[in-house]
Amino acid sequence: MEQYRRQVNGRSGRLEDVREAALTLFAERGYRATTMRAIGGALGLRGPSLYNHVGSKQELLRDIVLGTLENLLAGHGAAVAGTDDTAEKLRRAVVAHVRYAVSHKREVLVNNREVLSLDEANRVLLIARRNEYEGLFRGLVERGLREGRFAVGSARMASYSILDMSNGVAVWFREDGPMTGEEVSAHYGRMALQAVGVRPDPPGGV
Amino acid sequence: MEQYRRQVNGRSGRLEDVREAALTLFAERGYRATTMRAIGGALGLRGPSLYNHVGSKQELLRDIVLGTLENLLAGHGAAVAGTDDTAEKLRRAVVAHVRYAVSHKREVLVNNREVLSLDEANRVLLIARRNEYEGLFRGLVERGLREGRFAVGSARMASYSILDMSNGVAVWFREDGPMTGEEVSAHYGRMALQAVGVRPDPPGGV
Repeated sequence: MEQYRRQVNGRSGRLEDVREAALTLFAERGYRATTMRAIGGALGLRGPSLYNHVGSKQELLRDIVLGTLENLLAGHGAAVAGTDDTAEKLRRAVVAHVRYAVSHKREVLVNNREVLSLDEANRVLLIARRNEYEGLFRGLVERGLREGRFAVGSARMASYSILDMSNGVAVWFREDGPMTGEEVSAHYGRMALQAVGVRPDPPGGV
Repeated sequence: MEQYRRQVNGRSGRLEDVREAALTLFAERGYRATTMRAIGGALGLRGPSLYNHVGSKQELLRDIVLGTLENLLAGHGAAVAGTDDTAEKLRRAVVAHVRYAVSHKREVLVNNREVLSLDEANRVLLIARRNEYEGLFRGLVERGLREGRFAVGSARMASYSILDMSNGVAVWFREDGPMTGEEVSAHYGRMALQAVGVRPDPPGGV
């Protein structure tokens, strides 16, 4: 995460603005429909001056999708660190993911929609980081199964389900909707625990 | 559904082949990266002869996404018809959806990814049919809540979650994977019931 930020900031102070404009356009129109000219236009940059800040549209997409995964991985680590209880770790991890999805809708939408727009090498990088992140959820489900706390037929399908339902929030959540991001996150944390068949108390009691 | 099929078949016997080729290319490369020339090429048609069968690429996308919703709506109706039990209706509806997702991966991927590629009028049509379909799941969750069988904070978030996790299957399922489509469907049916906090028996017993 820090390493990633240093790399990005090292290139250009203006690069963050370019990434922000690209992110909005990728989310609203899609990657292929977005031209470098449109990204420059959103920043009041004309002609080739955008290339002083960034090498290519593909590079912008790569930075966005990999940066999103770095943020999710860091958020997961912070979320699960404060408790030893497996169900509570899973609940907090889901809450952290949904909080990110409601506050970074564009990032989550672009990550989910634009896998086909990545070059082969960048796609391989993204999929490796995604697998790493999914593995953290799967590991928690496996631990809950070993402890007899969870009841689900497949830890892999459980982790896929939890991530797919949590990513879906980025599609439908509206800031001006009937529920706040905090309320939605809390609901999803509880639903995810129910989905893995969580039992309220550890076997044998406290 | 029948009306839709008649309309499609009435235009051209070859149209189904064109839709099939378009569906594969849309799913593999994305809508914008697919040219009408490439669709024709996949069928051995050169130059303008493809236009004897179909008006435009947008028309193909519209037929694919609306046809998918018609199939899902019909499948839902058939799935829930055989039982009066709310939890069992919901389980069967999820199994039907996941069966469709494993056997029609391309359709589900294109439906989820290409909303931005639809013209405004077609997007409005698709969203209306999607809302109708989502409403069927939400209605079942609301009924289960009224009956005291389900425990979930929001019927809307529950139906969104169930559909998002079920659609996700189309992304990761592989025919040559460790589980069959039937096994995956059955797992998802059970997980969805757990997610809404289903209790095994109706209150008051049989």
